[in-house]
Amino acid sequence: MKKCFNARERALAHIQDLHAYVPGEQPQGEGWVKLNTNENPYPPSPNVVDAAGAEVQLLRKYPEPQSIQLRDAIGQRFGFDSSHVIIGNGSDNILDLITRCFVGEPGAGHTVPSYSLYPVVTGMSGQSLSDVEFDRSMRLDVDAIVSTEAKVFFLTNPNAPTGVAFDLSEIESVLKAFDGLLVVDEAYIDFGGSSAVSLLNNYENLIIVRTFSKSYSLAGMRVGFALASPGIIGMLDRVRDAYNLDRVAQATALAAFKDEAYFEEQRQRVIATRERVRQKLDQLGWFTYPSAANFLFTEARTASGASGAAVAESLFDYLKSKKILIRYFPSHPLTCAFIRVSIGTDAEMEVFLTAVESWLKNA
Amino acid sequence: MKKCFNARERALAHIQDLHAYVPGEQPQGEGWVKLNTNENPYPPSPNVVDAAGAEVQLLRKYPEPQSIQLRDAIGQRFGFDSSHVIIGNGSDNILDLITRCFVGEPGAGHTVPSYSLYPVVTGMSGQSLSDVEFDRSMRLDVDAIVSTEAKVFFLTNPNAPTGVAFDLSEIESVLKAFDGLLVVDEAYIDFGGSSAVSLLNNYENLIIVRTFSKSYSLAGMRVGFALASPGIIGMLDRVRDAYNLDRVAQATALAAFKDEAYFEEQRQRVIATRERVRQKLDQLGWFTYPSAANFLFTEARTASGASGAAVAESLFDYLKSKKILIRYFPSHPLTCAFIRVSIGTDAEMEVFLTAVESWLKNA
Repeated sequence: MKKCFNARERALAHIQDLHAYVPGEQPQGEGWVKLNTNENPYPPSPNVVDAAGAEVQLLRKYPEPQSIQLRDAIGQRFGFDSSHVIIGNGSDNILDLITRCFVGEPGAGHTVPSYSLYPVVTGMSGQSLSDVEFDRSMRLDVDAIVSTEAKVFFLTNPNAPTGVAFDLSEIESVLKAFDGLLVVDEAYIDFGGSSAVSLLNNYENLIIVRTFSKSYSLAGMRVGFALASPGIIGMLDRVRDAYNLDRVAQATALAAFKDEAYFEEQRQRVIATRERVRQKLDQLGWFTYPSAANFLFTEARTASGASGAAVAESLFDYLKSKKILIRYFPSHPLTCAFIRVSIGTDAEMEVFLTAVESWLKNA
Repeated sequence: MKKCFNARERALAHIQDLHAYVPGEQPQGEGWVKLNTNENPYPPSPNVVDAAGAEVQLLRKYPEPQSIQLRDAIGQRFGFDSSHVIIGNGSDNILDLITRCFVGEPGAGHTVPSYSLYPVVTGMSGQSLSDVEFDRSMRLDVDAIVSTEAKVFFLTNPNAPTGVAFDLSEIESVLKAFDGLLVVDEAYIDFGGSSAVSLLNNYENLIIVRTFSKSYSLAGMRVGFALASPGIIGMLDRVRDAYNLDRVAQATALAAFKDEAYFEEQRQRVIATRERVRQKLDQLGWFTYPSAANFLFTEARTASGASGAAVAESLFDYLKSKKILIRYFPSHPLTCAFIRVSIGTDAEMEVFLTAVESWLKNA
């Protein structure tokens, strides 16, 4: 007779209620113009290929467990020693480590909208999450953040999916008044905005999280890092998988990080394309938030001037029928009328804009 | 004025008490005979190089989030569809997912000795861990396991660091009588012992965890997998990082897994070397547990017949002075007189045995 085990009933209560993160669609076929997950349209530094090739010869042996070369290089760039740096299997891994170490009652906080992983990582640890709602201005409400009394507050700067960057003075106001740990998630900072790195020396309640997925073109490699006090880093290291980064990930991230000239060139190309597309959207009369990221968040409008959730969805569907993938966020009144389009190559953005014009003729 | 944040005091209570896992030493210099972390002495399938090279061209894009090709291939090999398979960033990642999903009061259980990561993953989740102590026979105490009433019991088969394999009938007895989830950690199963895979159809309270680190020579790549009911796999997927495996890890593991002929050849080479070394240790008059793994656990004895913790440590130190790394486990009476030596190439094992003989002359 078969012995049964009801996995759902046996799971911890907070796991039973958990909704897993839903990543943007990753079509495996050919021919897509993929502007839906904020990937970089340009490949990583050519040095990455050699770095990977060398490590592939050594795969039978465990990686160096601390990613120490990467910690050293990153620390040095920002003026710290390696004790201020931790490396994650993607920045998502680091957000989870922060939650596991520091989020107890009454839970964490985040702005709405922001990166949709924060509810997932807090839910995975059985913790609650306070919402600080934006209004349409998308400016930071410092008092509301402070009054959450959260153990950890997640702030994305520049924000997602809006692209709006916050002033350093606003972030400093939060750090001054907030008793908990402020996580500034700078996934998109290399495309604009002011980094909070300069605040690290004066505010120990700050941790800055970055990723190699966007500006370093290594989304396929899963490498993120964080900068904070050695005290915070030491706690995070306690819950880190001893071998969280494989050999190839460590080596490719290091190669990409060291090729500063290449990095700067691609970064500027993305920014220039973003500004050109932004102008085109302005010419259509669409409202677009000022973006400091590698995407644009724009309110779709039909030729007759209509906007709203149905219009955004119609545009999403139309573009998908043309094998152009973008993203829309129907679940919130501040986002439901908007689409988010990642910045691709100039050619890809031409395809996108041409399709938008053709949609306008039919919508 | 600097704003302070006492990270230790701010961390959750169970994190403050946590001891991180201490991996075996990974010397970065040259010239070491490295027999301390059970790595495979042979490189992975040559197909791995091409697989990695192809993926490195695609790194700007996110990986496929489910590792679906790998789930399919593994499921197929064992007679299941992919809903019975999950892929982890190393099997350590999967052990953590299991703990996060299923371990509540009164905690988890494990045998002593066994893999030293179990206390770490349960501690990371703030859960306690019941010990089921072996005696020197290292046979399984089924009743003691059942009476822990643990939510999850971790059983390593073949066991570490002893190498002793348990009978399938013993494991089935546990599955019959134990109410919780039994994790059979088969990290070393390809080197001997009977896999519990055949029990999966009849016992839903079973999950089998495997790794590509040992028999597939991919320790540097961090890939593990587990086989269980779709109900269990579905729960684990809820707490899995959406992109837990990078592109190169997915592709290299798939290439290694598919090259069955190469796999079989290296596996047999390791087993043959193990048995030769085993005979040599027998000739020295040392007691060695019968090993079904890629290492030997042997009680070091001086020329005058003395054994014990000091003897094992002396041998460890002597070998290290010759740049030969092995492992010893001084913290438990059943392990403290033993050394664990991973199976290297025949040439490496000659270096080891020659050094042992030279130690015997001096000890």
